[in-house]
Amino acid sequence: MKYVIGVDIGGTFIKAGVVSEKGDILAISQIPTKSEREFCDVMSDIANLCLRITESAGVNFSEICAIGADMPGFVNSESGVVVSGCNLGWKKQNVAEELFRLTKKPTYVLNDGKAAIYGEYKFGKYKFRSAALITLGTGVGGGIIQDGKLSPAMSNELGHTVIKANGKKCNCGRKGCLETYASATALINSAKKAAKRYPNSELLKSDIDGKSVFAAYKNGDFAAKKVVDAYIEYLAEGVANILFSLMPELVLIGGGVSLAGDALFEPLKKAVDSKVCGVALPEFEIKPTTLGNHAGLCGAAAFALDNLGGVQNNE
Amino acid sequence: MKYVIGVDIGGTFIKAGVVSEKGDILAISQIPTKSEREFCDVMSDIANLCLRITESAGVNFSEICAIGADMPGFVNSESGVVVSGCNLGWKKQNVAEELFRLTKKPTYVLNDGKAAIYGEYKFGKYKFRSAALITLGTGVGGGIIQDGKLSPAMSNELGHTVIKANGKKCNCGRKGCLETYASATALINSAKKAAKRYPNSELLKSDIDGKSVFAAYKNGDFAAKKVVDAYIEYLAEGVANILFSLMPELVLIGGGVSLAGDALFEPLKKAVDSKVCGVALPEFEIKPTTLGNHAGLCGAAAFALDNLGGVQNNE
Repeated sequence: MKYVIGVDIGGTFIKAGVVSEKGDILAISQIPTKSEREFCDVMSDIANLCLRITESAGVNFSEICAIGADMPGFVNSESGVVVSGCNLGWKKQNVAEELFRLTKKPTYVLNDGKAAIYGEYKFGKYKFRSAALITLGTGVGGGIIQDGKLSPAMSNELGHTVIKANGKKCNCGRKGCLETYASATALINSAKKAAKRYPNSELLKSDIDGKSVFAAYKNGDFAAKKVVDAYIEYLAEGVANILFSLMPELVLIGGGVSLAGDALFEPLKKAVDSKVCGVALPEFEIKPTTLGNHAGLCGAAAFALDNLGGVQNNE
Repeated sequence: MKYVIGVDIGGTFIKAGVVSEKGDILAISQIPTKSEREFCDVMSDIANLCLRITESAGVNFSEICAIGADMPGFVNSESGVVVSGCNLGWKKQNVAEELFRLTKKPTYVLNDGKAAIYGEYKFGKYKFRSAALITLGTGVGGGIIQDGKLSPAMSNELGHTVIKANGKKCNCGRKGCLETYASATALINSAKKAAKRYPNSELLKSDIDGKSVFAAYKNGDFAAKKVVDAYIEYLAEGVANILFSLMPELVLIGGGVSLAGDALFEPLKKAVDSKVCGVALPEFEIKPTTLGNHAGLCGAAAFALDNLGGVQNNE
């Protein structure tokens, strides 16, 4: 059995896990990112974390074939360089080289949305050749696999495609990005506004988060229904855009909002169907991700293992 | 030297050409499509056209390795079936099988936007690994190549991605598709409206078409400037969306409107730059297509030749 370490570097936490070639996680642990520190200090912490979890997993470090790391931003998987690390604040840092220097393990890096879809591709519940992933969290992330291959793009920034020209201002500088309408942040902001407008709404009973908005929606709360209906309508535009552009057989939806389950997926499917019914699109499915929070970590591990064999974006 | 016949099936005309493996067109001819006829009558005409142009090219029909045909709509290149042929009105017609039956030549089919970018990839002026093509004609077509491979989608309907939710109604049933703002048809419709509003405009001096709108724009006509500025702004949203999603190194713009040259490309580049300047996108270029009207025909021929070798979506 081959073992790889997957490292998921987020803005707040860094998670690392020992992953078998079958996708089983033998041990997992996390540390705070504290990305305001020097880059080499973060890398040093990651190297130590890798040693610790290998011990926890009961595996000898010599048995670890490789390290795969994923992170937000534009990541050049060929050179190992994080060109632009978004909220990590990294610019042109060679993560692969630095982790190799510290651990002597061949290290491979890729964008977190790409890692998540690669994890689903290798170890998830659904078998597919072509799929797109949209993650609905603080922002909206993306990943694309076509004909068994990861998109060669440094990142698939599906959240920063404009669905409403001259719409809401986005952090990226554009106006009307999918992210400004379909992120968890956007949902919560809309709900807060609606709560002010409708003071009898159930939305005001608790702190407003994605979960509470969908709870109120399921209870038939008028204000929550307005918010969720509009949210789903915009999300459906984003999903339909991907279907028209690339015609994947599967669109996976992940991130916090996807935990709403049927309350999200049933109306979303209807909304998407109404947008594509005019044409004979190939069959497609819209499903929640199946690996939860570990998709990126597992995908990064699989990416490292597959590239180790000398094949890039391996099938 | 190997020879292939490329057949470009359009709503109005069918063009066929004998193409060498180097991309040279030895002979070319066209016939009216008259797609309202029975499917087998159209196919029979195409088979006869193939024989005639082979003779014109001074090539023996036995020297023709294969036939490659492209057409609008959703085309399953694996089965040879045109699932939905848009303005051809075809539904589930096996073009590959029928042309093989009539000519005894192995026949391969693909969507016209995909054929056009494949032609540019194999025989065009620019060398690239990843690119997207947008054609600005009656509608807006698309094609995507990533890492040297054609998108496996039956079609890349970039024209039917929504850039303005709840915007102008599109023939496809959606509202706010790129096509409703960035096609030649959209440009001409805007110019006609502007001409009514500004009766002193140069736009009224001749019949309004893409060429006359850009001619007036170059002359500094106020109404034409308003029309073209808005047109370019929307087109730039579409181009930027592709850059964020797939980060191709090259975006090719084809179709009638692309003939406007610098008057289109200079402001378009500026508009796209202003939309992507907030992030450190990889370098990209925006260029006019280089094979003109023959890109599809040449691409279909190359696609047939490359698949003949047993490799699909060959590099």
